[in-house]
Amino acid sequence: MYSEVLGQVVRVLSLTAVSFIAAMLLTPVLSHFLYKYKIGKQIRTEGAPIFTQMHQKKSGTPTMGGILVWFVTGAIALLLWILSLIFDGFWNYLNFVSRPQTYLPIFSLLVAALIGFADDLMGVLHIGPKGGGLKVRHKLVLFAVIAAVGAWWFYFKLGWDFIHIPFLGDIALGPWYILVFFFMIIATAFSTNETDGLDGLAGGVLLFAYLALCVVAFVQGKYDLAALTGVISGALIAFLWFNVYPARFFMGDTGSMALGITLGILVMLTNTALLLPFFGFILVVESLSVIIQMTSKKIRHKKVFLSTPIHHHLEAIGWPETKITMRFWILSAVATVFGLIIFFVDKFL
Amino acid sequence: MYSEVLGQVVRVLSLTAVSFIAAMLLTPVLSHFLYKYKIGKQIRTEGAPIFTQMHQKKSGTPTMGGILVWFVTGAIALLLWILSLIFDGFWNYLNFVSRPQTYLPIFSLLVAALIGFADDLMGVLHIGPKGGGLKVRHKLVLFAVIAAVGAWWFYFKLGWDFIHIPFLGDIALGPWYILVFFFMIIATAFSTNETDGLDGLAGGVLLFAYLALCVVAFVQGKYDLAALTGVISGALIAFLWFNVYPARFFMGDTGSMALGITLGILVMLTNTALLLPFFGFILVVESLSVIIQMTSKKIRHKKVFLSTPIHHHLEAIGWPETKITMRFWILSAVATVFGLIIFFVDKFL
Repeated sequence: MYSEVLGQVVRVLSLTAVSFIAAMLLTPVLSHFLYKYKIGKQIRTEGAPIFTQMHQKKSGTPTMGGILVWFVTGAIALLLWILSLIFDGFWNYLNFVSRPQTYLPIFSLLVAALIGFADDLMGVLHIGPKGGGLKVRHKLVLFAVIAAVGAWWFYFKLGWDFIHIPFLGDIALGPWYILVFFFMIIATAFSTNETDGLDGLAGGVLLFAYLALCVVAFVQGKYDLAALTGVISGALIAFLWFNVYPARFFMGDTGSMALGITLGILVMLTNTALLLPFFGFILVVESLSVIIQMTSKKIRHKKVFLSTPIHHHLEAIGWPETKITMRFWILSAVATVFGLIIFFVDKFL
Repeated sequence: MYSEVLGQVVRVLSLTAVSFIAAMLLTPVLSHFLYKYKIGKQIRTEGAPIFTQMHQKKSGTPTMGGILVWFVTGAIALLLWILSLIFDGFWNYLNFVSRPQTYLPIFSLLVAALIGFADDLMGVLHIGPKGGGLKVRHKLVLFAVIAAVGAWWFYFKLGWDFIHIPFLGDIALGPWYILVFFFMIIATAFSTNETDGLDGLAGGVLLFAYLALCVVAFVQGKYDLAALTGVISGALIAFLWFNVYPARFFMGDTGSMALGITLGILVMLTNTALLLPFFGFILVVESLSVIIQMTSKKIRHKKVFLSTPIHHHLEAIGWPETKITMRFWILSAVATVFGLIIFFVDKFL
């Protein structure tokens, strides 16, 4: 048993390393392609004057860098799956495509990536309302559709209806499960979209969430799922290398939608919905700041923050961009540790 | 057995969290003290014109922030040890001061911290050659003395003389062990000293090395040692919060000596000397760049780098400071993963 666990540790870490290397090697190609076709970011000019002023200099940096993460993940999954079908043995050990564990998250990663890709393209080609891709409320409708499909799958196909509450155990929710599922997917997708606003920010924040879920899935014995999160993390680290300030490229909706929605799916698969506020602490803070601001504007006709999401507020009060990014990484790391403490104490008791 | 391991995971993670919180709470006090007594950094003005020009703006930022890490570690160790003597039970579970595992690293941490503290004070009070504390060659002599004491302890008191070579096993070195020990301590101390040159750089690089050793010690069943590295890591994360660009304070020699030398001791205690180039990848790169530059200057009378350590070369060719820091963090994370792969494969086979 000890030896099997060690073997799985080696497998997950090795796949993470392979994914990182593959993504690093692929970057020159992607980068060349993005710059050649001028897949530039349109900085939004409506409704947020402070934001616009601060970010004008970023106009022109290519977007869609998120392709790196989902393409590498998909390619490695496909390649290992094919090799495992042909050769068996060693390749079976590496292959992490398995119906009970990873079909669904891989599927959601790629579908969300394609939708985000379409949105990014609309932005680049100046299609859509005001010529810049989908607006937030259109995205929310899209997220809702994806969430509905996922909820249907979990509740009716898999027959899941329970949520784990740390220290209390599994609580059966019946049809309410669908609502919780719905909320989780929209929340992760929306939050990731909001967080993706500074160089290296969303990538780093998501990295900690995926690493936490890698540990969780591993401890739950879901080794294929742990391998998948490892592969995503490896590619994310390579993405970060080029995405830190000053960014070579941005993640784009193809990255943030894919990684945001898949994060929600992974959380439901590992039954750790109530730990997500720890694993994705910054995601929660960012979307809460937006919700508070909107509510306050509606009710009090006053702003709470100079600009939202909150990273723009911090920029406006004078924090250098990289200070916000690095401190948000640190907060993510610390909150993840707290989430893991709860997870392990709960398992321990 | 499974339950015991879970209990130890909870213990190590909790101590890490406690240490982080304690260090965060202590920072205002430390910060006030450092600013009040103007414990400012003297930027060296001799021998490195490019460096001096780039770093003049940092003059005045207080140093000795490393106090945070060793003071919090020492205080938590002492407190838990006393509580475990009085109350037993729960406090015994938390206490990580134990003769076979942590006496030596705690001792080396505090002794090296005090020596570094004295050096920092000399710098602040303008004592010493050219009025700025010890020079590199004086520090090397100091490191050698500490290394000699440690080598004597390991070889004669503990009777250790073997080095683990991954995939080959333990090799007995006889008296040559003393030389290897000597080299390791001087190498870690010197490298950490060289790496400590940009905001957040040494702190982040050391964090990954200590986290890796935490995993290694844990897997080796040295739970007290894992707890100690967790406590150091927690305090280091808090230190980083204030040390990222633009830094509130620097680590100082009291931090870099304490953490560098203790890193060497920990590597010898876990018998992972050959994995240190992975866990402390940036440390190796930084000191190699210095050695290459010095050798080239001596032999070819030409420079290889515009300025060394290599982070100054990257600054000189135009990388923003934070880009160097973040990319060196990323490299540390990746190299640590590779080191852990070797460690686990070696255990697995």
